[in-house]
Amino acid sequence: MSEQSAPSPTPAAELSSDPASPLPQEIASALKRDSSGLVAAIVQQHDTNEVLMLGWMDDEALHRTMTSGRVTFYSRSRQEYWRKGDTSGHVQFVKSVALDCDGDALLIRVDQIGAACHTGTRTCFDGRDFTVVTGHRE
Amino acid sequence: MSEQSAPSPTPAAELSSDPASPLPQEIASALKRDSSGLVAAIVQQHDTNEVLMLGWMDDEALHRTMTSGRVTFYSRSRQEYWRKGDTSGHVQFVKSVALDCDGDALLIRVDQIGAACHTGTRTCFDGRDFTVVTGHRE
Repeated sequence: MSEQSAPSPTPAAELSSDPASPLPQEIASALKRDSSGLVAAIVQQHDTNEVLMLGWMDDEALHRTMTSGRVTFYSRSRQEYWRKGDTSGHVQFVKSVALDCDGDALLIRVDQIGAACHTGTRTCFDGRDFTVVTGHRE
Repeated sequence: MSEQSAPSPTPAAELSSDPASPLPQEIASALKRDSSGLVAAIVQQHDTNEVLMLGWMDDEALHRTMTSGRVTFYSRSRQEYWRKGDTSGHVQFVKSVALDCDGDALLIRVDQIGAACHTGTRTCFDGRDFTVVTGHRE
């Protein structure tokens, strides 16, 4: 991510961190961002385990989410931050945040007020199943 | 995705589809792929609703997942397909596949054999929580 003018003792960590990140160094270093600087954020209802939606976060959105009690995403299409519920009232209160083993996905457990989906359904996946071949244990 | 030599009556659909996709046209057209041609795939245990992991799928990986009863991902780091469980034995049997409202995330509900994570934990998020400020309903 950043150019090095001299050899670094910890190049792997420095490559994946951003000196301008608002996050603690150990978290910034653990993120494996895509070419747009984003990681995927799965949002799950904390008490039912429903998967509500998937959004995207850069370092700033994750920082806001971890420090404010409310979920903030970065919109890839609008290229701006949006705090869930500010327009719709469908707030997501943060209960926990975890980063996966390879650093490219967050699991945000929340208390979701109302519908998570802008279409009005509880989750962004409701009623959107494909017809598939299912598999089974032997 | 593809160049047009003449005006198209349905440019939006054609831009997001791929004539080489193995998927049905209505599914290929609904996918909103990133610059690498991938969508995020959330994997959830079908009976407990645990979020197990997040992987990535291109059209071919999704096609294999929808038609074989087993989950296949596309590895961004290795740039190859991998069918979950072929090496580890930790197979994911497909129960359902849904695409979210804006087409950039799949929810794959599975029956997971053993650990979903290559580190040996049940999910890729286990024990990886950050310390955060939580939010609460008024």
